[in-house]
Amino acid sequence: MSLDKNEISDWFKSLQDDICQSLEIADGSAKFQTDNWNREEGGGGRSRIIQNGSVIEKGGVNFSAVYGELPENIKKALKVDGNQFFATGVSIVIHPINPFVPIIHMNVRYFEIINPDDENRGAKKTCWFGGGIDLTPHYVFENDAQFFHKSLKNACDKFDATYYQEFKKWADDYFYINHRNETRGIGGIFFDRLTENEKFSIENRFEFVKEVGLTFAPVYTKYMDLHKNDSFSDENKQWQMLRRGRYVEFNLVYDKGTKFGLDTNGRIESILMSLPPLASWLYDFKPKSDSKEQHTLNLLKKDITWVS
Amino acid sequence: MSLDKNEISDWFKSLQDDICQSLEIADGSAKFQTDNWNREEGGGGRSRIIQNGSVIEKGGVNFSAVYGELPENIKKALKVDGNQFFATGVSIVIHPINPFVPIIHMNVRYFEIINPDDENRGAKKTCWFGGGIDLTPHYVFENDAQFFHKSLKNACDKFDATYYQEFKKWADDYFYINHRNETRGIGGIFFDRLTENEKFSIENRFEFVKEVGLTFAPVYTKYMDLHKNDSFSDENKQWQMLRRGRYVEFNLVYDKGTKFGLDTNGRIESILMSLPPLASWLYDFKPKSDSKEQHTLNLLKKDITWVS
Repeated sequence: MSLDKNEISDWFKSLQDDICQSLEIADGSAKFQTDNWNREEGGGGRSRIIQNGSVIEKGGVNFSAVYGELPENIKKALKVDGNQFFATGVSIVIHPINPFVPIIHMNVRYFEIINPDDENRGAKKTCWFGGGIDLTPHYVFENDAQFFHKSLKNACDKFDATYYQEFKKWADDYFYINHRNETRGIGGIFFDRLTENEKFSIENRFEFVKEVGLTFAPVYTKYMDLHKNDSFSDENKQWQMLRRGRYVEFNLVYDKGTKFGLDTNGRIESILMSLPPLASWLYDFKPKSDSKEQHTLNLLKKDITWVS
Repeated sequence: MSLDKNEISDWFKSLQDDICQSLEIADGSAKFQTDNWNREEGGGGRSRIIQNGSVIEKGGVNFSAVYGELPENIKKALKVDGNQFFATGVSIVIHPINPFVPIIHMNVRYFEIINPDDENRGAKKTCWFGGGIDLTPHYVFENDAQFFHKSLKNACDKFDATYYQEFKKWADDYFYINHRNETRGIGGIFFDRLTENEKFSIENRFEFVKEVGLTFAPVYTKYMDLHKNDSFSDENKQWQMLRRGRYVEFNLVYDKGTKFGLDTNGRIESILMSLPPLASWLYDFKPKSDSKEQHTLNLLKKDITWVS
């Protein structure tokens, strides 16, 4: 059996619709603007951006489905054979106004390599799912972090008892700012190359990715509701700007999705929608030892057990 | 004949002193703070940072002289043999408050590979100079750009009639933001691997690098004086933040000095002092067609002849 790639991209498109609607309701004032775009080499996307809302300062919920010739550098990086590819997915980054509302990122994606030789001899196509959700609070609240990981664990546990531990560790390792010796945020889950195998059908992998996608809106809008009215000082706002600076560092130095986009002549405005509306770098800033800021830094570590 | 590496690093140190003094005088209020640091694997540096001045919002003038084992990845990237290196230089980035004062960057450096086999058989050591100066106006003024290139051409012409054209083209190619299809600013000069050869002694290369280093202060303080009192609007300030965003993109995605620093476990605060105090990313911002902002974008191209 085999999944139809259009069925997958249609589902991702409907996920984009759902999430945008939920975010508009939770924000209460701003609306998404839609930009449809075509990729010269094949396919295109539907970028949706929200700016200057009541809760969200800048956010993007992007859908794309692109195809065409597989660039040599990508072929090498992915260690795959074949000359054509198809890639579809939804990518989200939300930067809130209130420093006590966290930044969030989600990506769910499907990738297919098309090798005419395989098709001719009736061999299976090479395809997989990937994705993840991770949370970047400017200020870490332990109970919020526990709720986040609990929600992801629930989604994972419906499919396999090993998923959460494995994908949580993957997120800790992936969302790591090596030159700062700190994690980007409190992690979440990250997974890639979920192919069909003896244990899982490709349909089952798709169902898991759907579950992850549907976890996003209820979890994030909860944080929006919970913290949008928290009062904050100039100092809190300055700290938010510094944490956003770290977010920029991660995305431009390490993030594979950003690199993939820049290397494949992707749509720049959609790729870089993840960058914050305003970010700051101060020289050698160190928070006071007993401050909330230092408490947050202490929790930006790998291998913290938030739920077991 | 051969230069002594300590003589070179001493000169770079005195250049740092000179430039800091000139910048403090031109700023009129802020003073540099000095951080001396040691590198675990060998050597160290003297970072000097100025913040919240009358003219300069954030700037760094950093000296370093580091040595030790040559990391494998650097050996590969530089395509050199040898197991020890020595590197010394001065790096500068200045972010002004007034959007009509340009951002400037300079780097002058000396690199030496130490190969004990070479030393034993009395062979020459492998060593070279590199560096460059480039200007990133938030708003390009043609006469300022001409003055900048004229000053650099004068410095180059004292040493070789081919230097300016060659090093100007090198800067156009190097300071290029590929994913934006635009140059970082109006360029300048860039050069690397200036070794001893039939035409130039290593002493002569050093004299050229000194000339470049000494060009910095009079040129940049002129722009500080010229534009520090220009009146500006919120719109001008917003544009400055967007241009600073592009500066961040260049430094984190393309800059080889930044990559070298991150790859060799350099001092992070010194490497990333180049990042602006505040930067902005707006989704798909396009200036009006007849605006000063669009005029600037039109001049962020390679191969503009500023002086001939």
